[in-house]
Amino acid sequence: MSLMRCTCGGIDVHAHVVPAHFPACLNAVVPPGWPSTTDAPPQGGLCHRHVLVGGQHYRTVNERCWSAPRRLAELPAMGLAHQVVSPMPELLSYWLPLAPARQLIRYLNDTTAGLCAESGGVLKGLAAVPLQDVDAAIDELRHAIDHLGLVGVEVGSNVNGVPVGHPSLRPFFEACEAMDVPVFVHALKPAGMDRLVGPAPLQQVLAYPTDVGLAAASVITGGLLQACPRLRIAFSHGGGTLASLLPRLQQGWHTFPALRDQLPEAPRDTARSLFYDTLVFDQPTLDHLLATFGDSQLLLGTDYPFNFQEAEPVARVQALGLSASRTEALVAGNARRFLGPRGGLG
Amino acid sequence: MSLMRCTCGGIDVHAHVVPAHFPACLNAVVPPGWPSTTDAPPQGGLCHRHVLVGGQHYRTVNERCWSAPRRLAELPAMGLAHQVVSPMPELLSYWLPLAPARQLIRYLNDTTAGLCAESGGVLKGLAAVPLQDVDAAIDELRHAIDHLGLVGVEVGSNVNGVPVGHPSLRPFFEACEAMDVPVFVHALKPAGMDRLVGPAPLQQVLAYPTDVGLAAASVITGGLLQACPRLRIAFSHGGGTLASLLPRLQQGWHTFPALRDQLPEAPRDTARSLFYDTLVFDQPTLDHLLATFGDSQLLLGTDYPFNFQEAEPVARVQALGLSASRTEALVAGNARRFLGPRGGLG
Repeated sequence: MSLMRCTCGGIDVHAHVVPAHFPACLNAVVPPGWPSTTDAPPQGGLCHRHVLVGGQHYRTVNERCWSAPRRLAELPAMGLAHQVVSPMPELLSYWLPLAPARQLIRYLNDTTAGLCAESGGVLKGLAAVPLQDVDAAIDELRHAIDHLGLVGVEVGSNVNGVPVGHPSLRPFFEACEAMDVPVFVHALKPAGMDRLVGPAPLQQVLAYPTDVGLAAASVITGGLLQACPRLRIAFSHGGGTLASLLPRLQQGWHTFPALRDQLPEAPRDTARSLFYDTLVFDQPTLDHLLATFGDSQLLLGTDYPFNFQEAEPVARVQALGLSASRTEALVAGNARRFLGPRGGLG
Repeated sequence: MSLMRCTCGGIDVHAHVVPAHFPACLNAVVPPGWPSTTDAPPQGGLCHRHVLVGGQHYRTVNERCWSAPRRLAELPAMGLAHQVVSPMPELLSYWLPLAPARQLIRYLNDTTAGLCAESGGVLKGLAAVPLQDVDAAIDELRHAIDHLGLVGVEVGSNVNGVPVGHPSLRPFFEACEAMDVPVFVHALKPAGMDRLVGPAPLQQVLAYPTDVGLAAASVITGGLLQACPRLRIAFSHGGGTLASLLPRLQQGWHTFPALRDQLPEAPRDTARSLFYDTLVFDQPTLDHLLATFGDSQLLLGTDYPFNFQEAEPVARVQALGLSASRTEALVAGNARRFLGPRGGLG
């Protein structure tokens, strides 16, 4: 019975929402990045819609993106009791002028909150915030947490090229710490695009984890956790490339006085205070994350409902052959700790 | 006795040469990136020199960079019988106009060949080539292999931003395959510099492995090994971030028809045909490389004689607790296979 509970009790912290419709932009000048949707042919009995960004096709999505009943019907087969949902990152709109960005982000947060409200407590939502303006981001965060009941915030791995560990973004993370709001960092507009040789999906496949790895490294080398020691911050895609970078960063910290002088704590230790999802598609790589970051820091992640997803997140963790208590930590316990009291998951 | 042989018989494929002096540029206009050296105060009984690039201080190096006797005296304590030496990558000069680049690269190759000649067969050298012009690079490769006795070639992870897997560089690799010349890919002028938060050494620490990982991925996604199936190509720094990227690339290949249509072989399988050095400073990460790439594909690498180096490359492999034959493969056998007949190491 305890195995059954474990199998069905997973908490997925990495899943996305796309609204079925977007509002018209209220600004006199509609910015080029404003999103919209149009009907697409149904497939497999599911309603589909095309998402357009600035009038160009970005992705075709289905009703799993916005339908609470559809999601609730599918979670048990994935071993999930709860799912923490966040906007499709391409909608975070850091690149829009502030006024339309605020309108769009408020709409996203209302949509996410509505989906969660429909779910009877199964779904929990992460807010979007307009990080192109840190004060506006803090205002939206307060609204989303205090008035919409969202339980955390999703931020991009960089904000218009500025990585999350940069000091210019620190006041936002200080506000998250002060409000006890967990932060989920997702890859976005990644570095390294000019190093890709091949078709467009390589952006998601290779550049996303690259940017997340550099973002997580920037949090370590920028000293964010030393400035905000109670901040809970998680990184998508298993922290991307961080697990490969970290031993070299640790050795570099021993080797270069300029790094050691700047960082009072060893990078390896700081890395073990961050959280990472399990979305790496591979058992040896999960083993490496466990050895590198520790079994207290990993959280289930699926990228549901997109096609490039982990379909069996709980089964993959169970296949690691860990003890029942360590398995329970990866499947749900760590996520409860990451979400904290606002998560409402005990 | 066999353990003693193993301990002292290592082959390090990742070590560097810096000339003690550079010639004057023969061109009428000296390009801004032309290197020079000046005297630096001796330290620890070692002669030191400052390397300047375009008149600006780049790095201070010591006689280990150019002295064969000093190197021969130090290799046994590292468990090394042989070392494969290549120019400090910042000297590869892809960014210089072709005429001065050819002059400088010829000088580098003469210097590397001279160091190897002084070593009585202990040191083997990799050529530099002016890859800003593929035909000129092939000409220099022929000269370096046929007339100077160098045994392989070092190339940057990108050539002025173009990753090594890009089709525009393919004729060079076809020449390497035809001449049976092994290729060592080293990080250079990396992507992701705008994602770093912290002091200058983070370029080497974080951006180098990031660029190598993307370079190795570009070789896989660009189909280089399908075009040149007998090419032997190795990547520095354990392949950088490739081990973190590969499971996602494999899953992406299953998910996205655009990738599967382009790549007849699964990325995981192609990756197991490339070589990687062991320069990752960490046992769990070495274990991950073994699980990901296979024990036939790893080669000792140290970055000797720079301060950010692996001081005990053989001991670190021995600590993995592999069988004697697998240890021997990592310590020397794989390097012999990578170097091939030109290596002259049996």
